[in-house]
Amino acid sequence: MTSQSDIDALNSRLQDAAPRDIMQEALQGFERVALSFSGAEDVLLVHFAARMDPKPQIFTLETGRLHPATLRFLDKVRSHYGLQIEMLYPDGKALEKLVSSKGLFSFYEDGHEECCGIRKVEPLRRKLATVDAWITGQRRDQSPSRLDVPLVELDGANAAPGSQLLKFNPLANWTSSQVWETIRLLEIPYNPLHDQGYISIGCEPCTRPVGPGQHEREGRWWWEEATIKECGLHRSNLADPDA
Amino acid sequence: MTSQSDIDALNSRLQDAAPRDIMQEALQGFERVALSFSGAEDVLLVHFAARMDPKPQIFTLETGRLHPATLRFLDKVRSHYGLQIEMLYPDGKALEKLVSSKGLFSFYEDGHEECCGIRKVEPLRRKLATVDAWITGQRRDQSPSRLDVPLVELDGANAAPGSQLLKFNPLANWTSSQVWETIRLLEIPYNPLHDQGYISIGCEPCTRPVGPGQHEREGRWWWEEATIKECGLHRSNLADPDA
Amino acid sequence: MTSQSDIDALNSRLQDAAPRDIMQEALQGFERVALSFSGAEDVLLVHFAARMDPKPQIFTLETGRLHPATLRFLDKVRSHYGLQIEMLYPDGKALEKLVSSKGLFSFYEDGHEECCGIRKVEPLRRKLATVDAWITGQRRDQSPSRLDVPLVELDGANAAPGSQLLKFNPLANWTSSQVWETIRLLEIPYNPLHDQGYISIGCEPCTRPVGPGQHEREGRWWWEEATIKECGLHRSNLADPDA
Amino acid sequence: MTSQSDIDALNSRLQDAAPRDIMQEALQGFERVALSFSGAEDVLLVHFAARMDPKPQIFTLETGRLHPATLRFLDKVRSHYGLQIEMLYPDGKALEKLVSSKGLFSFYEDGHEECCGIRKVEPLRRKLATVDAWITGQRRDQSPSRLDVPLVELDGANAAPGSQLLKFNPLANWTSSQVWETIRLLEIPYNPLHDQGYISIGCEPCTRPVGPGQHEREGRWWWEEATIKECGLHRSNLADPDA
Repeated sequence: MTSQSDIDALNSRLQDAAPRDIMQEALQGFERVALSFSGAEDVLLVHFAARMDPKPQIFTLETGRLHPATLRFLDKVRSHYGLQIEMLYPDGKALEKLVSSKGLFSFYEDGHEECCGIRKVEPLRRKLATVDAWITGQRRDQSPSRLDVPLVELDGANAAPGSQLLKFNPLANWTSSQVWETIRLLEIPYNPLHDQGYISIGCEPCTRPVGPGQHEREGRWWWEEATIKECGLHRSNLADPDA
Repeated sequence: MTSQSDIDALNSRLQDAAPRDIMQEALQGFERVALSFSGAEDVLLVHFAARMDPKPQIFTLETGRLHPATLRFLDKVRSHYGLQIEMLYPDGKALEKLVSSKGLFSFYEDGHEECCGIRKVEPLRRKLATVDAWITGQRRDQSPSRLDVPLVELDGANAAPGSQLLKFNPLANWTSSQVWETIRLLEIPYNPLHDQGYISIGCEPCTRPVGPGQHEREGRWWWEEATIKECGLHRSNLADPDA
Repeated sequence: MTSQSDIDALNSRLQDAAPRDIMQEALQGFERVALSFSGAEDVLLVHFAARMDPKPQIFTLETGRLHPATLRFLDKVRSHYGLQIEMLYPDGKALEKLVSSKGLFSFYEDGHEECCGIRKVEPLRRKLATVDAWITGQRRDQSPSRLDVPLVELDGANAAPGSQLLKFNPLANWTSSQVWETIRLLEIPYNPLHDQGYISIGCEPCTRPVGPGQHEREGRWWWEEATIKECGLHRSNLADPDA
Repeated sequence: MTSQSDIDALNSRLQDAAPRDIMQEALQGFERVALSFSGAEDVLLVHFAARMDPKPQIFTLETGRLHPATLRFLDKVRSHYGLQIEMLYPDGKALEKLVSSKGLFSFYEDGHEECCGIRKVEPLRRKLATVDAWITGQRRDQSPSRLDVPLVELDGANAAPGSQLLKFNPLANWTSSQVWETIRLLEIPYNPLHDQGYISIGCEPCTRPVGPGQHEREGRWWWEEATIKECGLHRSNLADPDA
């Protein structure tokens, strides 16, 4: 078992490490480790993984509501890097129940939690139950709820009962600018929606382009309060995760 | 049991009937009867159903690859007519298996049958096992494979083992022009993709707008032969359905 | 001087001629003859002209309000056929006067005649004053006002004072289907707007895509009466051209 | 005559003035003063002008190649503020000469100077010959060539022979963020292209959206060197304006 003080020590040691080194730490430290790829600028982590590991575990939550352009991009990444990307689908029965009763856009009425619960959280936990650590593209500058994202953390919210799960956030200390400079420098393929005003990219009905000078988080779940804009994947980021 | 000669008699009797009357026949003749709604111009049948039955059974195959505009349109129809539309989802496990191994666009390589099988045929049959008759928007003028679509037929391809299933095609004798004149006359809401060059509308990667003078079927599975452009729902239309 | 009975004889003689032969007649019969190219499916005539004449006179009314896609298409045609296409611009002073007082969209309020007058009719007449005949892509099936378009006619409306002007309409007898089959058969480049639901293409604010089963003329000046949808270029088509 | 030392004194005095105060200075100091409105975020200056002056002189260079969305926005501003916006058009003859010989996209081959010369510079100088001062939306943070833009300057490049012309740049000291915060705070209408990834907006073929972390100037004349990206209106910004 990794204790919180082990985590603290790891965070201290990695504090000035480059994202690549933090990923390396995760990929080498665990046999069962998977990278979560959303189809947005976290493609940078896919690029790193492809160079470090001949067969990295990479998964995407294919919610059934991604932009067609994102699906095409996911497939492009797959063939560009010659990688397998595991697509995780929501449970059809749960979807039928929600959508047949409330329609396809209930989240605009009563919040995104129920829909994200079925389309993202459940498939994610199913996957995370099979690994000891996962890697995400979270950054502190992404949102008010991510200001304290550490490089490494114990992920109690997503750990299977009786198990321990570590979460690595190799880009936590990086800014959007750093990520994008690196993507452009390394000529990494990126989601074409980024050239149409989109910064953060999630499900199509819950993502929109942002205008000049707007924060990227204004492009997600814009009808809800800024402080609770987490889809449940990173729910431990919220001060009161049960709120 | 309805015999083929009963069907023949029914077809003779309905030969000059209006689509509304054919629908009436189906809705009144069967307690367990459902209307298949694709999100395209078969909205005309939804309109009729809403006027004939306080609570018609209507379902849509929500394949997970429909255009975002189609999903919005489905929801608009639902609220416009105050109807419930049952959304049928594919099995998540089957999708994961297909897509994780072959990617999200394998149909461009080895044909649409495998993908349609998971996303359309299986959910449809699951649904049809619960009814005695279903109603579709098929028309003879839609495709070379639909030239002989009757008003009523026994649907052996989709019947559950040991059961009988009737399929009503109330628009079989109508032309595209008749359908559209009626939609415009009755000011029925329609999928906005129809104003962007789309005639036939199915899954996003397998549908495209057609140009002036092109047949609507050229907008579907255009990389395949015209004569086999059936998604499996109406497979009995094919001369050799096992081909 | 060509008399009306000469014209009648010519029309009789050409009645069953193919569009190519009618164009040939125009190109060979007059030294000063120009083809009007709108950037729509009349590209078929450009194709013919390019094969008949090493240096055909072709002009386009560049109104300043064409779709960006049309401008790109015009340039593509120019380079594809290695032709010069003369672009005719409206008078800047006249535009300034109209637009500074009435705004950029006055045609939606008081009709398209004033704007077309400046952006199309004046530049056209300036051009036509330098030729003895011109060639257009008009067809009888395009509009109620074009039902009687002849293959050849005297163009009194556009002739310079004291001059005679002939107008050839080589496609008058053809249908939209025939034009499009030929474009596709000969693999002639066409305006990509035709694949987005546009049939007739003119200025951007005065053109829109048409839906399935709609007549192409419903995509032009849709806020006005069908019977007066002529931009002034072909004003003699109207029963009472001064209406 | 205003001397350079008068200008220096004025700049010193206005150094910490708000954009509104600088505009006030221009509008009150000169009877013949005009505001240049490009259809982008300089709408902020239109907003200020509408509040300061019942009938401010505002002009736009309607190059004939603006986005249809920009033309619609210009008209919206006109009706929203109840203002007249003078549209300045290029000389039709000059356009015909350029475009008929070199095509509609020659700027991609031999640079934007020739086209901007006809579509922007000439109409601008024609206008500026009728005023003593003009007001622009230039900012120092817009481009490497604008790093030294002063609040007020003598505009030798655009002054008519024998005349003096002052140029006020009330936003020179502001950042893009300040401009956009103010636009959003005051709920000023803005060009919808800004919500599709566009930051700087000019002619359609010479403007493109920029991606996350890209500088706005990368969206203009991207095929040319960053240091010479001036359209000629503000040519005196270039170290060697004859370069």
